[in-house]
Amino acid sequence: MTNTRRLFLKQGIAGTLLLGAAPLLSAATPDPVKPKKEKPTDLFKLGMAGYTFVNFDLDTTLKTMEKLDIHYLCIKDFHLPMKSTDAEIKTFHEKLAAKNIIGYAIGPIYMRTKQAIDDGFEYAKRVGVKTIVGVPNVELLPYVSEKVKEYDMNYAIHLHGPDIKLFPDATDVWKHTKDLDPRVGMCLDIGHDLRNGCDPVADLKKYHTRVFDIHIKDVTAASKAGRGIEFGRGMIDFPAFIKMLRKVKYTGVCSLEYEKNMKDPFLGIAESIGYFKAVTDIV
Amino acid sequence: MTNTRRLFLKQGIAGTLLLGAAPLLSAATPDPVKPKKEKPTDLFKLGMAGYTFVNFDLDTTLKTMEKLDIHYLCIKDFHLPMKSTDAEIKTFHEKLAAKNIIGYAIGPIYMRTKQAIDDGFEYAKRVGVKTIVGVPNVELLPYVSEKVKEYDMNYAIHLHGPDIKLFPDATDVWKHTKDLDPRVGMCLDIGHDLRNGCDPVADLKKYHTRVFDIHIKDVTAASKAGRGIEFGRGMIDFPAFIKMLRKVKYTGVCSLEYEKNMKDPFLGIAESIGYFKAVTDIV
Repeated sequence: MTNTRRLFLKQGIAGTLLLGAAPLLSAATPDPVKPKKEKPTDLFKLGMAGYTFVNFDLDTTLKTMEKLDIHYLCIKDFHLPMKSTDAEIKTFHEKLAAKNIIGYAIGPIYMRTKQAIDDGFEYAKRVGVKTIVGVPNVELLPYVSEKVKEYDMNYAIHLHGPDIKLFPDATDVWKHTKDLDPRVGMCLDIGHDLRNGCDPVADLKKYHTRVFDIHIKDVTAASKAGRGIEFGRGMIDFPAFIKMLRKVKYTGVCSLEYEKNMKDPFLGIAESIGYFKAVTDIV
Repeated sequence: MTNTRRLFLKQGIAGTLLLGAAPLLSAATPDPVKPKKEKPTDLFKLGMAGYTFVNFDLDTTLKTMEKLDIHYLCIKDFHLPMKSTDAEIKTFHEKLAAKNIIGYAIGPIYMRTKQAIDDGFEYAKRVGVKTIVGVPNVELLPYVSEKVKEYDMNYAIHLHGPDIKLFPDATDVWKHTKDLDPRVGMCLDIGHDLRNGCDPVADLKKYHTRVFDIHIKDVTAASKAGRGIEFGRGMIDFPAFIKMLRKVKYTGVCSLEYEKNMKDPFLGIAESIGYFKAVTDIV
């Protein structure tokens, strides 16, 4: 609850007390319309992880984002291949701009060799983004640390819960990156972090200095059995999460990675976005 | 905010104070998962106004409701014609039951003659619902008052804002019904009420004894120019509305009547439902 809202409620209660003598059921005359409280101004932004649309083309992706009033896209290679020419990249950005959408990052990209890391950074540079979401092999982390210096980019390691051994949760990424260049950090996937038995809200608090991107999702269980689900139906505590985003002054993007029913995800995507917007408006 | 939540926050603050000596950034060890707070148990139900699907058949309507986890439908005649046979009505209910959906009311139906009122009540009886959403001519209200006695049904007059003269807002319906049988009342359309310059939250408080159905929607302005829009983007104060539903112990259905882009409304419907669910979970 914001201070403005608290104040409003206090005034509301005071008003009731002052008017205590009035009958409970007043005469049948319309009340004037009360303005609703102003929405909080947030530093973080709402976005879409390209992977949500793995089964759909860029046009469908952008049309969906436009309807949902979402303006930040993390670009996946199936929408903009790494071998795209500069002209193709320009056309891609123009398509996004026509819908008032910014491609703010690329990835996730698995990078198992130095060459793959070189390719990833070059691609990011040509695309014109400052954030790479990637999954490098652990032994390549020192090389990633050199590259972020060279390119002045953030490298956000995507954590993937108990499904794979590489970077299961935020604590694991933190341990692997805390002594590297401060531009090496994580894409905090709140669903996968929870599925690995961790508290993503506490992890956001602890590791926020190295959180460069966030995948938002809800999941059915805090274990490997947890599956993606519409926001609010699962285990994620969204009010606590939004409060923590504000507390740590997160300035990046929270991108929806929706993984339920991916062949027909649209209603679930929209329900989730509506849920997230309401939490953002209210807490 | 529920009392449980208040208590939780208080305990949270107390806990922080007690642990004040602990370092802000603890060692890199995972925190245990905190359970999110339990959702409030509400007397009111979330439903769908059949009119939302005026351009779609029953199958599409039910599939959409199933995905959105909505279990109450106000039946429109384009999905179940008034001349349906008893066998057709039975098949209709079976279709709904297969999706765990209850057809809880019929309407809105405009009733300009005694015959139309007779037909409406007979239809409701055959369909097996206890609530009729209707718009009777004003001079027929005493007849409606007789019929609700005869059938022991609620008659919920749909209010329609500044678009038509008949029943523009809740206060108008109240004035016309307050001396009739207590089963004659309103379907409080919160968007149209606001569009007529009224406060639907205050009206719910004042007139709840005669509110038998509610159409939930958001609108862009508190005037005739106001148009339907995704929840949260317009002028309706949903937190205040949900709190009032609880305060007056409303036991009926809040049915989404979504009127933006009605030829392709699905993302807007889902975003709105997600928004409403979040407000319900949080305030």
